[in-house]
Amino acid sequence: MNDLASQIIAEGDLVLLSLSQRKTYLVRVEQSKSFHTHKGFVRFDDLIGKDFGCTVLSSLGCEFTALKPLLRDFIMKSARQTQIMYPKDIALIVMFSGIGPGSRVVEAGTGTGAMTTALAHYVRPNGRVYSYEIREEFQKTAMKNLERAGLADFAELKNKDVTVGIDEKDIDAVILDLAVPWLVIPHALAALKSSGMLVSFSPTIDQVVRTVETLKENSFTDIETVECLMRGMQVERGRTRPQTLMTAHSGYITTARKALKNIALISPP
Amino acid sequence: MNDLASQIIAEGDLVLLSLSQRKTYLVRVEQSKSFHTHKGFVRFDDLIGKDFGCTVLSSLGCEFTALKPLLRDFIMKSARQTQIMYPKDIALIVMFSGIGPGSRVVEAGTGTGAMTTALAHYVRPNGRVYSYEIREEFQKTAMKNLERAGLADFAELKNKDVTVGIDEKDIDAVILDLAVPWLVIPHALAALKSSGMLVSFSPTIDQVVRTVETLKENSFTDIETVECLMRGMQVERGRTRPQTLMTAHSGYITTARKALKNIALISPP
Amino acid sequence: MNDLASQIIAEGDLVLLSLSQRKTYLVRVEQSKSFHTHKGFVRFDDLIGKDFGCTVLSSLGCEFTALKPLLRDFIMKSARQTQIMYPKDIALIVMFSGIGPGSRVVEAGTGTGAMTTALAHYVRPNGRVYSYEIREEFQKTAMKNLERAGLADFAELKNKDVTVGIDEKDIDAVILDLAVPWLVIPHALAALKSSGMLVSFSPTIDQVVRTVETLKENSFTDIETVECLMRGMQVERGRTRPQTLMTAHSGYITTARKALKNIALISPP
Amino acid sequence: MNDLASQIIAEGDLVLLSLSQRKTYLVRVEQSKSFHTHKGFVRFDDLIGKDFGCTVLSSLGCEFTALKPLLRDFIMKSARQTQIMYPKDIALIVMFSGIGPGSRVVEAGTGTGAMTTALAHYVRPNGRVYSYEIREEFQKTAMKNLERAGLADFAELKNKDVTVGIDEKDIDAVILDLAVPWLVIPHALAALKSSGMLVSFSPTIDQVVRTVETLKENSFTDIETVECLMRGMQVERGRTRPQTLMTAHSGYITTARKALKNIALISPP
Repeated sequence: MNDLASQIIAEGDLVLLSLSQRKTYLVRVEQSKSFHTHKGFVRFDDLIGKDFGCTVLSSLGCEFTALKPLLRDFIMKSARQTQIMYPKDIALIVMFSGIGPGSRVVEAGTGTGAMTTALAHYVRPNGRVYSYEIREEFQKTAMKNLERAGLADFAELKNKDVTVGIDEKDIDAVILDLAVPWLVIPHALAALKSSGMLVSFSPTIDQVVRTVETLKENSFTDIETVECLMRGMQVERGRTRPQTLMTAHSGYITTARKALKNIALISPP
Repeated sequence: MNDLASQIIAEGDLVLLSLSQRKTYLVRVEQSKSFHTHKGFVRFDDLIGKDFGCTVLSSLGCEFTALKPLLRDFIMKSARQTQIMYPKDIALIVMFSGIGPGSRVVEAGTGTGAMTTALAHYVRPNGRVYSYEIREEFQKTAMKNLERAGLADFAELKNKDVTVGIDEKDIDAVILDLAVPWLVIPHALAALKSSGMLVSFSPTIDQVVRTVETLKENSFTDIETVECLMRGMQVERGRTRPQTLMTAHSGYITTARKALKNIALISPP
Repeated sequence: MNDLASQIIAEGDLVLLSLSQRKTYLVRVEQSKSFHTHKGFVRFDDLIGKDFGCTVLSSLGCEFTALKPLLRDFIMKSARQTQIMYPKDIALIVMFSGIGPGSRVVEAGTGTGAMTTALAHYVRPNGRVYSYEIREEFQKTAMKNLERAGLADFAELKNKDVTVGIDEKDIDAVILDLAVPWLVIPHALAALKSSGMLVSFSPTIDQVVRTVETLKENSFTDIETVECLMRGMQVERGRTRPQTLMTAHSGYITTARKALKNIALISPP
Repeated sequence: MNDLASQIIAEGDLVLLSLSQRKTYLVRVEQSKSFHTHKGFVRFDDLIGKDFGCTVLSSLGCEFTALKPLLRDFIMKSARQTQIMYPKDIALIVMFSGIGPGSRVVEAGTGTGAMTTALAHYVRPNGRVYSYEIREEFQKTAMKNLERAGLADFAELKNKDVTVGIDEKDIDAVILDLAVPWLVIPHALAALKSSGMLVSFSPTIDQVVRTVETLKENSFTDIETVECLMRGMQVERGRTRPQTLMTAHSGYITTARKALKNIALISPP
């Protein structure tokens, strides 16, 4: 994700070997070694010194394209110990949160770091992600995923229970993806700048209802909940049609902004 | 969108006056002046010196919250001379394009600058957006929208016909939102880094088919088309339900990566 | 809906005057009279003696096609004092209920009779619909709608509170479209044949949850809830695309079958 | 589907053995025999003489409910040599076609008879389905499926090529589910009553475009295309949410009515 990096594949580089968009492998190039698939093996020495985007043949004669991995690839390749968020949901959460370069963001829980990776990517170079997680084994996976994506410098992984409190202040956005978001809302209120954004992702409607109720009780405003359905298309002249199967549901996204209802109420003229 | 900016509302600041999430106004604060709505007027002097997030009463006693505008607000408030892209589509396009701080992006057409604003926001501080538009009047609106969002330094608006050619080289991503994307694909191929990403947004299936065909003919790989449906939820204990109406279609998003099929084909061992 | 009826338009016939599929009028043909629209008036005498399907010009020269009204038209033209069910939902409810010619069906509430009309249509000639409604004014509208569709003989409109009880026994299916379906479930259990089908339509998730819980407590089995989204397509070579707006939600459809769990439990061999 | 039939399970009856709504078996009861599943076997003698809706235990102690099969079950259990239509699509097609008891319907192609079964069910007792199919092996399967559902008397399976012509006249509705619907449209025009309904089901957009174009050229009016998405809900207090996976696409439904544009054009007053 270092956009200034060389376009030449070198020893130690991460490469997305793509057989098709449905079958890709995120691998690190090592001299004299090979990568084995059910479609034959690819020699890394065939890649080194070539441009990203080049196509090589495997030992069984199958074409693999050696792509430079992008954010979406890192998200999709985050270890799936937990149910990770889909890029579509992460994309909307990032957009709705308003964050960008320089933003300071609190996230909980870290999980395997898919969301953390995206947040770290966008707050570079001078922003920071503070990510809370109580399960240590997830934290280790998340750290590996962040390092692989070259983004470890922009995130601080904290092995703390976010339902007890948030250490940071003057935060631009709080992103919640945990089973009990409502327990974190009062802490989010304290941590956020006024007018700051809270975004919560929850699979069930019951979680959404409780979250929205707690947001209303905690001086949040502009509360909104949406879900996003993404459907693939099979595009081929004469046979174009939507795909047969799709993910019907991942989760609901709830957004809200911190208001100062009790402080600055001004009498009308 | 300057995340380090003061949290205190000052003369000249942009404020999102929010009556509800469905009714918001993006206004610039001017001393001794007022903003008039069908729910009464709000005196800017009541806001100056207060924190963003404060709530004021209008002359008719209605509550307005004075929020700090975020990227999504700038997108939604881009002048609607053209059909603008929705934040949901912009969010997916940004994510799928792989861009972030430091990226160099080509966009065409500029339109009223909704997409340009988002791209400029994310490529800060050292990246750049090159945005092509042949209709001068749109360009002016786009420039105003970029300036309002404080992002004019990160985008170069070019009054040129992108179907004739792209001036830039070694571009990370090309974003197309125009009637004839297929005419731009050969130029995008020349402008992109190898392994670089092209994203095209089109309302009709016919445009998508022609775009995909041209991508295949031009050495692009991992070609994929999706559409995104976003549905709002009305959340209230005892009455929770999806919204009654939704946008059924804005456009299809097609993504593809530049491969070097003819250059680096390596014979198998 | 009398399929054996003449194809010649006669005095007293119902005709669906169609300007386009978005603009249609359900009118009764009366000699020497006219039907007035914003596109001019149509003389009924121009229609009498012609075939259904003929096209006439209005006084302003606009083309109207005189179609024979079908079930869907009668449903769409049911007076909209209440929120009527959409044909898509009625279609699924009819299919899932398993009813057909000869079925005996209980419905509640009648509302303006859109669902009643559909049920009566399908249970002809020897089945019967028993429809409960406490609001007398709705019942009158429903009766008019049934009579207009020529289906009054197949439905019995009952001005009774279905939450107090259902008079009928050995019913094939019970169709519920009311605010408190769970109050009717024990009565439905008593009214249904064993293995009979209950279908409930509710706009909110809270209603669905309570309905499903009550079904489980009342010896129903194969309980399933779905929602149906219908999206129109604008079909035109070179510009084909989904419609811009759609109904995002009408209601959830819950189906269940009456089991005899406590009666016929047989010990394994 | 004989609604007047006994509610007592007898030798020779079809029973839907339901382990859950996701796992059901359509079996014929035979004295002294058993039905074997991965959850143990069920003795038919345990069912005979009991009411439909009774619950029995398998040899492994699993509960099976013996339901009376309904139309939807017969559709779902139609042999899957071809891609069958889903009940949701059949439901909409039946509704949009306007057919009911007494209707005379032409269908092509028959396939394995899922749609034929539904049509025969609804046109009883005095209507008739004329179903065209060129592949003899499908016709045999369709006949078995119709017989199993007790509906063979209401459908005439014709081993003829519908693209050559339709034998029938004064048909209420023509239902098309074949690869080249446009070839049948002129024949449908000849076969239909004026104002009669044509409904075509096609998986690809290209088929839809060509169908709509041919309908326009052939004096059809009120042409409309829709698609239907059905999503299941997992309903359980505290964990309610949409299902994770869904069918993203089965096909588009196009409807049109036969107009007499060239015949009855009447000069305005």
